[in-house]
Amino acid sequence: MSSTYNGGIKLSLFGESHGKGIGAVLDNLPGGEPIDLDKIGEFMARRAPKKDGTSTTRSEKDIPEILSGLYEGKTTGTPLAAVIFNSDQHSGDYGNISHIARPAHADYTGYLRYNGANDPRGGGHFSGRITAPLCFAGAVCGQILERRGIITGAHIRSIKDVCDEPFDPVNITAKQLEQVRSRPFPTLSENAEQKMREMINSARMAQDSVGGVVECAAVGFPAGVGSPMMEGLENTISRLVFAIPAVKGIEFGIGFGCTELFGSENNDEFSLDNGKVVTITNNHGGILGGISSGMPIIFRVAFKPTPSISQPQNSVDFKTSTEEQLIIKGRHDPCVVPRAVPCVEAALNIALLSALLEQPLLPGEV
Amino acid sequence: MSSTYNGGIKLSLFGESHGKGIGAVLDNLPGGEPIDLDKIGEFMARRAPKKDGTSTTRSEKDIPEILSGLYEGKTTGTPLAAVIFNSDQHSGDYGNISHIARPAHADYTGYLRYNGANDPRGGGHFSGRITAPLCFAGAVCGQILERRGIITGAHIRSIKDVCDEPFDPVNITAKQLEQVRSRPFPTLSENAEQKMREMINSARMAQDSVGGVVECAAVGFPAGVGSPMMEGLENTISRLVFAIPAVKGIEFGIGFGCTELFGSENNDEFSLDNGKVVTITNNHGGILGGISSGMPIIFRVAFKPTPSISQPQNSVDFKTSTEEQLIIKGRHDPCVVPRAVPCVEAALNIALLSALLEQPLLPGEV
Amino acid sequence: MSSTYNGGIKLSLFGESHGKGIGAVLDNLPGGEPIDLDKIGEFMARRAPKKDGTSTTRSEKDIPEILSGLYEGKTTGTPLAAVIFNSDQHSGDYGNISHIARPAHADYTGYLRYNGANDPRGGGHFSGRITAPLCFAGAVCGQILERRGIITGAHIRSIKDVCDEPFDPVNITAKQLEQVRSRPFPTLSENAEQKMREMINSARMAQDSVGGVVECAAVGFPAGVGSPMMEGLENTISRLVFAIPAVKGIEFGIGFGCTELFGSENNDEFSLDNGKVVTITNNHGGILGGISSGMPIIFRVAFKPTPSISQPQNSVDFKTSTEEQLIIKGRHDPCVVPRAVPCVEAALNIALLSALLEQPLLPGEV
Amino acid sequence: MSSTYNGGIKLSLFGESHGKGIGAVLDNLPGGEPIDLDKIGEFMARRAPKKDGTSTTRSEKDIPEILSGLYEGKTTGTPLAAVIFNSDQHSGDYGNISHIARPAHADYTGYLRYNGANDPRGGGHFSGRITAPLCFAGAVCGQILERRGIITGAHIRSIKDVCDEPFDPVNITAKQLEQVRSRPFPTLSENAEQKMREMINSARMAQDSVGGVVECAAVGFPAGVGSPMMEGLENTISRLVFAIPAVKGIEFGIGFGCTELFGSENNDEFSLDNGKVVTITNNHGGILGGISSGMPIIFRVAFKPTPSISQPQNSVDFKTSTEEQLIIKGRHDPCVVPRAVPCVEAALNIALLSALLEQPLLPGEV
Repeated sequence: MSSTYNGGIKLSLFGESHGKGIGAVLDNLPGGEPIDLDKIGEFMARRAPKKDGTSTTRSEKDIPEILSGLYEGKTTGTPLAAVIFNSDQHSGDYGNISHIARPAHADYTGYLRYNGANDPRGGGHFSGRITAPLCFAGAVCGQILERRGIITGAHIRSIKDVCDEPFDPVNITAKQLEQVRSRPFPTLSENAEQKMREMINSARMAQDSVGGVVECAAVGFPAGVGSPMMEGLENTISRLVFAIPAVKGIEFGIGFGCTELFGSENNDEFSLDNGKVVTITNNHGGILGGISSGMPIIFRVAFKPTPSISQPQNSVDFKTSTEEQLIIKGRHDPCVVPRAVPCVEAALNIALLSALLEQPLLPGEV
Repeated sequence: MSSTYNGGIKLSLFGESHGKGIGAVLDNLPGGEPIDLDKIGEFMARRAPKKDGTSTTRSEKDIPEILSGLYEGKTTGTPLAAVIFNSDQHSGDYGNISHIARPAHADYTGYLRYNGANDPRGGGHFSGRITAPLCFAGAVCGQILERRGIITGAHIRSIKDVCDEPFDPVNITAKQLEQVRSRPFPTLSENAEQKMREMINSARMAQDSVGGVVECAAVGFPAGVGSPMMEGLENTISRLVFAIPAVKGIEFGIGFGCTELFGSENNDEFSLDNGKVVTITNNHGGILGGISSGMPIIFRVAFKPTPSISQPQNSVDFKTSTEEQLIIKGRHDPCVVPRAVPCVEAALNIALLSALLEQPLLPGEV
Repeated sequence: MSSTYNGGIKLSLFGESHGKGIGAVLDNLPGGEPIDLDKIGEFMARRAPKKDGTSTTRSEKDIPEILSGLYEGKTTGTPLAAVIFNSDQHSGDYGNISHIARPAHADYTGYLRYNGANDPRGGGHFSGRITAPLCFAGAVCGQILERRGIITGAHIRSIKDVCDEPFDPVNITAKQLEQVRSRPFPTLSENAEQKMREMINSARMAQDSVGGVVECAAVGFPAGVGSPMMEGLENTISRLVFAIPAVKGIEFGIGFGCTELFGSENNDEFSLDNGKVVTITNNHGGILGGISSGMPIIFRVAFKPTPSISQPQNSVDFKTSTEEQLIIKGRHDPCVVPRAVPCVEAALNIALLSALLEQPLLPGEV
Repeated sequence: MSSTYNGGIKLSLFGESHGKGIGAVLDNLPGGEPIDLDKIGEFMARRAPKKDGTSTTRSEKDIPEILSGLYEGKTTGTPLAAVIFNSDQHSGDYGNISHIARPAHADYTGYLRYNGANDPRGGGHFSGRITAPLCFAGAVCGQILERRGIITGAHIRSIKDVCDEPFDPVNITAKQLEQVRSRPFPTLSENAEQKMREMINSARMAQDSVGGVVECAAVGFPAGVGSPMMEGLENTISRLVFAIPAVKGIEFGIGFGCTELFGSENNDEFSLDNGKVVTITNNHGGILGGISSGMPIIFRVAFKPTPSISQPQNSVDFKTSTEEQLIIKGRHDPCVVPRAVPCVEAALNIALLSALLEQPLLPGEV
């Protein structure tokens, strides 16, 4: 019912786009985990608006201020809280649209949900800005995972109809994931990058926007983690991924593609690789029955085109119940997908660390 | 971490395919709601194996025995528990495969997760049979929704490459939903039914299996229900849908298709229809910012081909760490999709009733 | 909001006094734990009505039927469900009082809470009978704890003004706990037993009832388990203990007595015992900051006198809003305390196992 | 497992005594509720150290900075976050005791729980300072309750053996609660205040400390709110009250006193008061079966003497495993009870608002 995730990790996200600050409280982290704040900053910088024409020109420093939970550079195990104070607010840009619903935004639904009390400026709590503390949380969890050899990464699989190469679901390596996530525009193929940039640019020129698909993977995650039914890895990952605004779909492994295969084609046969149980193909995306198989975890997420476009749109003033034409001003991303890449990784990091912590271990059993 | 869903409704599912019984406990239902047990039976019959060659010949009566929570035909408001005793068990069929991992099943991952202690017979708790109590729970929730004018329904959108007509995302009616869900083979087009049956039959003949897509919708759900971030309608629906074995993807509204549109094409413009705020198109699937818009809620779910096929498959005995060839005996569905249709509806019903109950209302505020 | 506990262990209790059955679903248990059903039966027999005049003459066999979660005598790790079918129902006894509120019962509050829909027969879900599945769940958890050297037990500390000797909070042993809980009337002193039996008997003769205090302890629980603030051991134990009807208070260690001491008297000084950190006294009851100290965990629980007495009482028919005199028929305990002893142990067992399972361990860290 | 409460209200508390800041995130508040920040400040000032010799001389301004969730003076319905930056830190005072366990503190247990990683300065997250954000949260909830005629208040029932008059459990009024909570030293009797101040002062002079009992009540809470078993009002209130450091016991209504009464004495007979169902006595404390009866809710909480005393104490250095004598420096309360009064109210406010929000209402049902 809320902005609180309550699994092995408990995560409470707060803030509004044009309020005083946004942030996160991470509860139930293991204690004594070194956290490298510079790397947190690098992770979050990947989500920050770019200077290259692919995103909004709003410039937030987005440096999280740690309020608690870190002592001498390590997690204390008690709640880790961080706040990012909003600084670059142009509230005036939003003054005239507060009751004309922006299409594909949550203005109208949020107004109904909160009886008109929610903060309408820049989408309020519905703003994509709340993914900054999500990325903070994900970056923290990511460092704890990496220390255990679990590496996650994502790339832009497509922007509109321009596709990058897919991850190799069987052979993808930690090194490849680290490489792609360090790229300013995270694609595997430089050729795809070039075409995607052109696509985004042409959308921007046309006062339009485009969406795309993010593909995300994890390697090194131990087999046997997760649960059947309600709290499986797919349940948890999807629940966290849908916390990112603009997500409209998620698929694991071969995903919707499996519906066009015969069972004999889709089934991943098992074999042994130096004594380790592996599957020869990885259509299942590393998860069977909600539980990790030891194969790379792999999934794709659909992001809709940025709802905010500068073209005139027909809409409704939901306070006066009149039809109105709407022109959205302000600074907007012609495409959120490049900035969404670390958000998807963050959601995965939180889900994976949560799943590890939820495993019912008793002393003497690990 | 479990088979327990803990939202506005609390649902605990239990049971193993070849254990004594399977069942559900539904906590936090509103009190005084009449429950029609015959209609529950009809709902569950839609999930039961068919006699028409499209599914397993295992025959479970699957009549839920209500243990508590129902008094004089109405919910008491205290936990509603039901059990279905297993009767038609052929455990012997599974004797010889207990440690050779069936591809695309959870045998290996479940074994690791529970240190070898889980019930391996017929998949144990990972069996599709546990969707019977899920359907029970969904049928109960569905009756409570229907009394408030909220109607849900689903159809088979595709089996392999054979497609049914899609739901009309804007104009779909309660009547259409009720009609399609009453059909023995739930498609909108009879022609599609015919071709899908042929597809399933030819897979069965080839000792193979096929998957497909289920499309599900709700009409009459009030606008303004749900939440941003972690507990939005998409988060909750997807979390519950991934509780159904064999699901590999979910998409809302136009779903992955939105990634190929411009923002100007994807955005659903608002307008007024007799004073009511509506959208002219419904690419958003009735959910914006995690909250219902008042338009039909619509989503699609990908089901993989039944993992159990009779062809020889390569695999591994994960206890002895030897590569083995596997031949699966027993009775299996060549396609789970027709029986999955009510399961998806059930997940939606639980999610929608949960969301309604989670709305923070204070006395005097409704 | 419900009868569901959702910690490391997830426990869903269901049933009504005169419905078809009552039971429990335990989710997230560790897999592979041997469960001795005979010992479960012994534990539950301690809660069953006695033939010695101290309790109701209602005779329920109360043999739990395991529906799932147990395979070849061991927990599967997937949900463990059990049902106890109600057999000895005298619903007629309750026919004439359904809308005259029995004082100190939940008839009136339950009626309001569920808009009159709850099952009124014998208290419905509010009945003390629902402690039978609580004891089942506690007995299961207790066996898992015992295997790790954690022993719990309770005794009757007082009945009205008749007191038993207290547990020695520092030196109490597993053997003493095992001994006292095996006694038909669990007191440390036989003299106290005699006087308590007389007290209960004289209350029964006077058509009246008495309450008392249960003292409960655990030894062998490892130091360092629990959490500050909301999910400490005291929070969790008290939350579960208040699930037992008739509980009106709980105190840990020296409890309310600490308010009459100076800090210099109440503080438990630390010392070393063969290298192990101990406290010389145990006023803190084995819990500091919500976390176990390694000293015995000890607390006391106040039970009110049985509300059902045969004397005429003034009350109100809350349906007709008229004042009425009430005479309660049926079979009732003149004192619930002897039967409450295993219920308190059960609540403790569930709390302690939950706390152990909630400890955030990562692979390699135990 | 944590500092997060997850009921109708979701509350995440964070911070350490000598860290950068402490705070709270309140999720799932109703939207559109006016919040008077001055009154919040007054509430929190009641918890702040006094200048009258009864408490520590540490001086924190403790002005919460609202980061989100408040817009134009009203709750937005999205998470309300507040931070209190720590300013008056004397970390040096704690430098030399970090591994010698202070008796009755959580130094040793916290060290074990977090593998030595928790912040040891001033108790870190175990500090009573974390009750400041608890009070903030309680003050916010209290304003929402008051708008609906629900008034809560508490007084010091006893300090050591000095007692105040008790609340009248039947006739206590909103006005009396408002009066007592506005007193600088909240007792009903001025004579008791005088004697309690003397008691605290003499303890301070003797380098010692004292504890006491806080009695808390609510009037105007509607009948029929709460739940049986796990999530009743007693379960929830006690769970939240035990989040306050130094609490060792809680009792509702007549509490432990009920164990010394016959049922015929303890049972509260029902009657009609101008057509309203009431009880003539209120031994049950306004809660029956976990659900409110409409009578005043009343309970008492035991607080131990402040653990920090200046006298030498025997203890153990748990890092070197050596017995050591300990002398605690720094500023400490000789008695926490006066400052604990608003903390108990805060816990009650959160519990009551949570319970109201958890009531399963469907549109059209209030």
